[in-house]
Amino acid sequence: MSQKSQTAITPTRVENFPEWYQAVIKAAQMAENAPVRGCMVIRPYGYALWEKVQTVLGQMIKDNGVQNAYFPLLIPVSYLSKEAEHIEGFAKECAVVTHHRLEKGPEGNLIPAGPLTEPYVIRPTSETIIGEVIRDWISSYRDLPLKLNQWCNVMRWEMRTRLFLRTSEFLWQEGHNCFATASEAEEDSRLMLDMYVEFLRDYMAIPGIMGFKTEDEKFPGAVATRTYESMMQDGKAVQMCTSHDLGQTFSKSAEIRFLDREGERQYAYTTSWGLSTRTIGGLLMCHGDDNGAVIPPKMAEYPVRIIPIIRDEAGAEKVLDAANKLKKALAAQGVASQIDTREDKTPNKVWLAIKQGVPVRVEIGERDIDQDQVSWFRRDQDPKGRLSLSTNDFVAQINDILTDIQSAIYAKAENFLNGNMHQKNDLSAIRAFFAGDNVGFVKAPLSVLTQDDFNALKTDFAVTARCLPFADDGKMVLLGRSY
Amino acid sequence: MSQKSQTAITPTRVENFPEWYQAVIKAAQMAENAPVRGCMVIRPYGYALWEKVQTVLGQMIKDNGVQNAYFPLLIPVSYLSKEAEHIEGFAKECAVVTHHRLEKGPEGNLIPAGPLTEPYVIRPTSETIIGEVIRDWISSYRDLPLKLNQWCNVMRWEMRTRLFLRTSEFLWQEGHNCFATASEAEEDSRLMLDMYVEFLRDYMAIPGIMGFKTEDEKFPGAVATRTYESMMQDGKAVQMCTSHDLGQTFSKSAEIRFLDREGERQYAYTTSWGLSTRTIGGLLMCHGDDNGAVIPPKMAEYPVRIIPIIRDEAGAEKVLDAANKLKKALAAQGVASQIDTREDKTPNKVWLAIKQGVPVRVEIGERDIDQDQVSWFRRDQDPKGRLSLSTNDFVAQINDILTDIQSAIYAKAENFLNGNMHQKNDLSAIRAFFAGDNVGFVKAPLSVLTQDDFNALKTDFAVTARCLPFADDGKMVLLGRSY
Repeated sequence: MSQKSQTAITPTRVENFPEWYQAVIKAAQMAENAPVRGCMVIRPYGYALWEKVQTVLGQMIKDNGVQNAYFPLLIPVSYLSKEAEHIEGFAKECAVVTHHRLEKGPEGNLIPAGPLTEPYVIRPTSETIIGEVIRDWISSYRDLPLKLNQWCNVMRWEMRTRLFLRTSEFLWQEGHNCFATASEAEEDSRLMLDMYVEFLRDYMAIPGIMGFKTEDEKFPGAVATRTYESMMQDGKAVQMCTSHDLGQTFSKSAEIRFLDREGERQYAYTTSWGLSTRTIGGLLMCHGDDNGAVIPPKMAEYPVRIIPIIRDEAGAEKVLDAANKLKKALAAQGVASQIDTREDKTPNKVWLAIKQGVPVRVEIGERDIDQDQVSWFRRDQDPKGRLSLSTNDFVAQINDILTDIQSAIYAKAENFLNGNMHQKNDLSAIRAFFAGDNVGFVKAPLSVLTQDDFNALKTDFAVTARCLPFADDGKMVLLGRSY
Repeated sequence: MSQKSQTAITPTRVENFPEWYQAVIKAAQMAENAPVRGCMVIRPYGYALWEKVQTVLGQMIKDNGVQNAYFPLLIPVSYLSKEAEHIEGFAKECAVVTHHRLEKGPEGNLIPAGPLTEPYVIRPTSETIIGEVIRDWISSYRDLPLKLNQWCNVMRWEMRTRLFLRTSEFLWQEGHNCFATASEAEEDSRLMLDMYVEFLRDYMAIPGIMGFKTEDEKFPGAVATRTYESMMQDGKAVQMCTSHDLGQTFSKSAEIRFLDREGERQYAYTTSWGLSTRTIGGLLMCHGDDNGAVIPPKMAEYPVRIIPIIRDEAGAEKVLDAANKLKKALAAQGVASQIDTREDKTPNKVWLAIKQGVPVRVEIGERDIDQDQVSWFRRDQDPKGRLSLSTNDFVAQINDILTDIQSAIYAKAENFLNGNMHQKNDLSAIRAFFAGDNVGFVKAPLSVLTQDDFNALKTDFAVTARCLPFADDGKMVLLGRSY
């Protein structure tokens, strides 16, 4: 078997992209379907990516003057009823808690008991409960702005699920900011999207299109929803985050009012903004190749993995010593590395590192040590293509190497996005594009499409309006298929 | 009103300790009861304490070779049925999800729809679901040890709740480790307790007694439960954490087996260990005084709060400049500080800092700036007692000051614990102690108490066995009231 032509993931992206995606996640040991319908188990290697999101984006959120807090998991059903649009959007499919006890049934099995007078839903999002609570925290303009965020789990009963991209339970952060004026809320919604885009581009290396959601696609109850739509390697779209300007919708349903400087009682203006574990799915679909995941260095817990090549017991100590020394030298450069000391065969270790998308792999054996050199491999290029540097040079250059990999991964994704963006100026051209074997997004003048046309695109081709790109001042619409 | 004799919290600890506790939490803006039965909202100042737990303890957990992961919120009811003792302990009071949709009912209100064929419970703890999943991750001894942890929310339907100490939903970390041998699991259970105790003593400044839970009080299904029992200022006990040696109980119910080095299929040995938001309640009840919370410096997000004293607009810039300069100088010493720039009166800012238990408060006015001195206050001593140092000395000494405060808070709590520990050598002395107006723990020889005696202590005085202290080799039992 020639490992040069053979790739690690079956099927390949071209053969079957959705199955390739599931295979990558499995091979990289990132997640798996839970024995609970629609839910996933996030394995340590996948969870480390989420922890990186929490660390980096978490700091960005704090730097924006937002404070973390925690609100209850359960929401009384009556709260959902207060906001008519919201209920249409979220009450349909959610987990409903109706009892607070289990008892032994007649056949010895456990059955629900202790019925609740009012059922609860597991939060699908927390606008309603947070509104009910912060109402009492706000009395005057001095209490505004109030900027809150929580990292938590939410649940939406999804019929068709896909690891990370769409699961019944998922992890996210949800920000909820509250202002005295409409313009502050509008600006905040813009700033929070900018923050997300900075994170997604600079850390996740994911390019995309910023824009407004259309009326049909915006958050139930929002004045406006801002989004960042990215293109996967099958040309489909993933909505990476959203930032909603909620106007006074939720302040009116939850009675969030304050005394302004003139002593008048006013309704506040709120925003909400979220980014979830879905982004990890986006990252994998955006950068992965037929050998598995490709992780941008700035998202990797350990951007370097060192694999000790031990031929016999006699050489083991020498190799492990050198591996540890290299690890220390890299740490002194601010680069975290991991030595794979597990009891396993070297080829398995090598292929695991490739499938997990570790940006830089080092294979360290006695010959390298004797020659004072480092044999290393770039995951974003040929992952079996051996590179060589003197130990000193490798250590001195490691940050530049990682920066170069980060840039290369972004550039590749950006080229793909640009190369699969098609402008079509009338309905028949749009329909012809999606009817054919074409891949990617279509940008079209909003004026050439009626509501009926949008409906037909959805019904006939599963194509929806991804956004109205900012760059085109709302005159163009971005169309694509999505997950 | 003389602020020297008047304290900020009503009632005082002596007047009504439980109400004092609720009042402290409210005055410090740490948490409040949610509009969801038995649940709490953790406000930013309270959540910052939990984030400190996550940061510090989280690193300790990783340093022990444990990896973070995430398992589903919902557990199929059938999983709970697999382990007989476990079900007795946890299935009784939990939130049961029975439907996956809401629909408009005949009166226009929302009613549960889409009944589930098998109900789920919201996890009260995750041994069962984690066991079901990791069974497939383990095939041989090479896959062991497997050490996993998750930071998450759990739910137990509590009838009587108290902010932080006992709430239906709470936040915690739950560790689940899996080993090839009984001795490794036993040692791990010990090590994880040691880790907790290090955190609780060195960061939370909370002294306590390490020991085993009695048969009656141990975790359902555990071989042994290790605990750290701390004393609150009303003499009651709070169990700050637990570490369970689960033996093969859960590996047998979940079929977690592995091939050992001899090729024999063996059941694994597991441990689980958890520490929750309850510890924040313990911290407040252990250190707080009649002016509010007292936060140990190592637990404070901002150990120093700077209050600018601005008499007129002319002096405002000068004062704010000096405050910012001081903040920078403290940051250079590795100490985070916060300037209270909110639009509020100075006395309100001062008392908020006191009630929130900020370790060191600085009040900075024009006179201080002119004299190049810092007026500062120690929360753990007289919080209105002004201290003075030259700016240079204050900055140079800040770490020593904080270390001294940390030690003083621990020493005070330790004196209280030691001063309220009573040895009683027979049943009548034990009963006389708890029948009287006495406060604290009683240590007694295990041999003088029968099961009936324990039952009577519980019924008559709400006294339970807190633990069998390690220090006494299982020969003594620690008795006390708890929350």
